[in-house]
Amino acid sequence: MRVALLAHERFPDDAKTALGILRYAEHDVAAVLDRDTAGTRVNEHVPDVQDAPIVSDIDAVDAPIDALIVGVAPIGGGFEPSWRPDVVGALERGCDVIAGLHYFLAEDEEFARLADENDCELRDVRKPPEDLTVSEGRAGEVDAEVILTVGTDCNTGKMTTTMELARAAAEAGHDAAVVPTGQTGIMIEGWGVPIDRTISDFTAGAVERMILEAGDDHDYLFVEGQGSIVHPAYSAVTCGILHGAMADRLVLCHEAGREAIHGYEDFPLPPIETYVDRYENLAAPVHETEVAAGALNTSAYDEPAALDAVDEFADAIDAPAADPIRQGVDDLLEVLL
Amino acid sequence: MRVALLAHERFPDDAKTALGILRYAEHDVAAVLDRDTAGTRVNEHVPDVQDAPIVSDIDAVDAPIDALIVGVAPIGGGFEPSWRPDVVGALERGCDVIAGLHYFLAEDEEFARLADENDCELRDVRKPPEDLTVSEGRAGEVDAEVILTVGTDCNTGKMTTTMELARAAAEAGHDAAVVPTGQTGIMIEGWGVPIDRTISDFTAGAVERMILEAGDDHDYLFVEGQGSIVHPAYSAVTCGILHGAMADRLVLCHEAGREAIHGYEDFPLPPIETYVDRYENLAAPVHETEVAAGALNTSAYDEPAALDAVDEFADAIDAPAADPIRQGVDDLLEVLL
Repeated sequence: MRVALLAHERFPDDAKTALGILRYAEHDVAAVLDRDTAGTRVNEHVPDVQDAPIVSDIDAVDAPIDALIVGVAPIGGGFEPSWRPDVVGALERGCDVIAGLHYFLAEDEEFARLADENDCELRDVRKPPEDLTVSEGRAGEVDAEVILTVGTDCNTGKMTTTMELARAAAEAGHDAAVVPTGQTGIMIEGWGVPIDRTISDFTAGAVERMILEAGDDHDYLFVEGQGSIVHPAYSAVTCGILHGAMADRLVLCHEAGREAIHGYEDFPLPPIETYVDRYENLAAPVHETEVAAGALNTSAYDEPAALDAVDEFADAIDAPAADPIRQGVDDLLEVLL
Repeated sequence: MRVALLAHERFPDDAKTALGILRYAEHDVAAVLDRDTAGTRVNEHVPDVQDAPIVSDIDAVDAPIDALIVGVAPIGGGFEPSWRPDVVGALERGCDVIAGLHYFLAEDEEFARLADENDCELRDVRKPPEDLTVSEGRAGEVDAEVILTVGTDCNTGKMTTTMELARAAAEAGHDAAVVPTGQTGIMIEGWGVPIDRTISDFTAGAVERMILEAGDDHDYLFVEGQGSIVHPAYSAVTCGILHGAMADRLVLCHEAGREAIHGYEDFPLPPIETYVDRYENLAAPVHETEVAAGALNTSAYDEPAALDAVDEFADAIDAPAADPIRQGVDDLLEVLL
């Protein structure tokens, strides 16, 4: 599938869906749409992913494409009016449009009409199945070892870490699968439930259902975590995943230098060393687990500072740690598999 | 308003909505529907609430009524087929039907048609507003002292404790209000958001909205808690309320003798004394709070055993405790106000 990725004013740092697709999906990316960085190329900003030109709008995409993917997820998951011409343009060209917003494209009158007229599809991957229900507390019964990424905050690399761990485990000959819980993971893997969009009573149950669905077919499940249990807005999502997944091992994800909750600067992160007990103690009454490894995003640091930061992070959590992108995940898999 | 309460096979122990209405609502209860205890009266089972006859079905309700209220909330919130004749019978009599189920009566074809034909209303109080969004972490800004009930499990008396505290505070001359978060509280108070039905990304935000709405108009807000942070299915709801409410004080609610999660008997409750740190540590990164008092449901105990249990509970949590129904809440208010 040949796609364009919409990431206006947010590429690369606040466009984690676009980046995830450039890095992990099997799509051929024809262009990234970002009016701020238009004229540059993806690899000028992020060297180690699929390259593509960055253009100002959908009309500047010359190559034929199958789909436009909304590659950003603003706080609240709303649809920004300035994106409308690109979505309209894509539909008028007969492209599908795929989004992971809380705002469902299929419920937008103009988009629905254009999709109908041009015989193309609006795919809202953040729409959960309608038959979810409460957890029965059974995820612990599956044969697979369940490994869950958890975070010191949102946007710390949980999706990236999950993907890197699962791919490296598979390359090493293990039968490993990803359990995607967010829009990017779902777009990459082609299945999954957008956990942050589930009804809170059913959040743990939705995770349990995925674990039960995949858990007897693989030796290892790498569950994509969401948010953080210290987050003022998203902790409900995190807590539901933690208890619903009943993970055997946790991987704590952090961004080097992050000192306050992303977008909530009045809320400082608690000391890193306290997160191990926080996650283990919250999980324990439902399922005993341990923080077995750490993943640190050091993308803002130069090499020596990054290596120091990884060492410091490993000391703080008293477990092996690595930057999955800079260093790979072999050291982490050694303790996880 | 004159009502009948549907509570088949569950009255009184598993009919907390029916009991809450009998105890706190201003409705005149004409009858309780329970085919198992039909022929007895409410006060034979529960002495200290509004009395009413218990009958086998809607046709046995002789008095004219304005509404039938579904007074039970089974795990999963489904509608049981055996209730259908009563709802149909009520609608055919021209009564409104009010429910707090995850299954929305208004979306049931037969009920919708009958309601239309008989000019009566189907009220699903578990349907949250459509414009909820993420928390901004602002609930701590309100003038009111915010007091939240939390539990060792679900069904431990959080709603009852909230109502008793707010009513006693008001009687003592304080300006106190309830923030209802569940179907029963909403039916009693006439406002509120059913938090367990909100999208998990917006759970904390829905609580925050209610606190901001009421928080500058009162000196004390008593927030009705839900579930428990150690619950395998419902902890997401609890965590969202804990962080969304940014409470100044917590009241820990427990049922004497409860040893395992209600309906999840493979999951033992952790030791009571650990709950204080569990709740305080989970809340702290968002808003510092303390477990200032405890409420113990001793309804299954005789008087001497109940008093012993209250003392033991107070020791375990190192705070004043009482059974709100047996002993009143004056001792609790002394430390809370």
